[in-house]
Amino acid sequence: MLLKRYHTSIRYSEAVTHRGVAYLCGQVGEGDTIQAQTRHCLAQIDDLLKQVNSGRDKILQAIIWLKDMADYAAMNEIWDAWIPPGLAPARACCEARLAAEHYKIEIVITAACD
Amino acid sequence: MLLKRYHTSIRYSEAVTHRGVAYLCGQVGEGDTIQAQTRHCLAQIDDLLKQVNSGRDKILQAIIWLKDMADYAAMNEIWDAWIPPGLAPARACCEARLAAEHYKIEIVITAACD
Amino acid sequence: MLLKRYHTSIRYSEAVTHRGVAYLCGQVGEGDTIQAQTRHCLAQIDDLLKQVNSGRDKILQAIIWLKDMADYAAMNEIWDAWIPPGLAPARACCEARLAAEHYKIEIVITAACD
Repeated sequence: MLLKRYHTSIRYSEAVTHRGVAYLCGQVGEGDTIQAQTRHCLAQIDDLLKQVNSGRDKILQAIIWLKDMADYAAMNEIWDAWIPPGLAPARACCEARLAAEHYKIEIVITAACD
Repeated sequence: MLLKRYHTSIRYSEAVTHRGVAYLCGQVGEGDTIQAQTRHCLAQIDDLLKQVNSGRDKILQAIIWLKDMADYAAMNEIWDAWIPPGLAPARACCEARLAAEHYKIEIVITAACD
Repeated sequence: MLLKRYHTSIRYSEAVTHRGVAYLCGQVGEGDTIQAQTRHCLAQIDDLLKQVNSGRDKILQAIIWLKDMADYAAMNEIWDAWIPPGLAPARACCEARLAAEHYKIEIVITAACD
């Protein structure tokens, strides 16, 4: 039962891996618009996935929380372009207020890793 | 690290399997009432689970999002009758607005599969 | 594909284990304040994790739903003290109304187990 943790604080680890699966902390992004925040959020996910020997082509499930569902189409434009063709994960998306008022999106990733 | 994807679009796969675990896309259902939508949603889950060599008796975790928590009891009537006796999964349920206004329920399933 | 279920009702199991991973039911807590409810919720998680041969040092991912995000800091005080130093899980937190009006917090745990 080997757990490996990455960037661990007193509150959370940015990622935990166990038996070939990586569980990431909910990722947010900075920026003034939903598209800017989504781009930054996905860039941080890329970075974390690389650190755990995974990648955007190996995501199993993505849970997306949007502060305002009116941002759904604009978020999807960025998401669809980020997903490698043919390799999209299972996904679910709902509306929810996030930990800080300025956050418009948070994504919770589970991915396969080496 | 073998991932298998089912019904993959540019945005998501309806299911992804990896190491004996199936991750399903959040499933919704059509219908005018919470019970009609729940029935349809669960029927779609049955169908997807069958395709990934799993079934409603092998669900590990179900996350239920309800647009209106006032629908909780009516949803549970359908859910309780659908679950095989003695084989219920871990479950959690909260209120959340969904991707389209007319959706009253969305269920995110993780299940064991062959 | 061995699933083991714990405290199974017609609606859910409090925990399901499969291939070294435990999926817990969303846990709530009783009490008049967010800190009282968080303490009780975490005590119930401790109890369930012990029953599945896991523990708070083996949590992979925690999803936290708060009824009111204004309780975030007060919840974190209890959470941070409960997490064993250096062993924090991946975590995500959003605001959501829960199944009963008096609940202020619900936590959904995935953990490694023997």
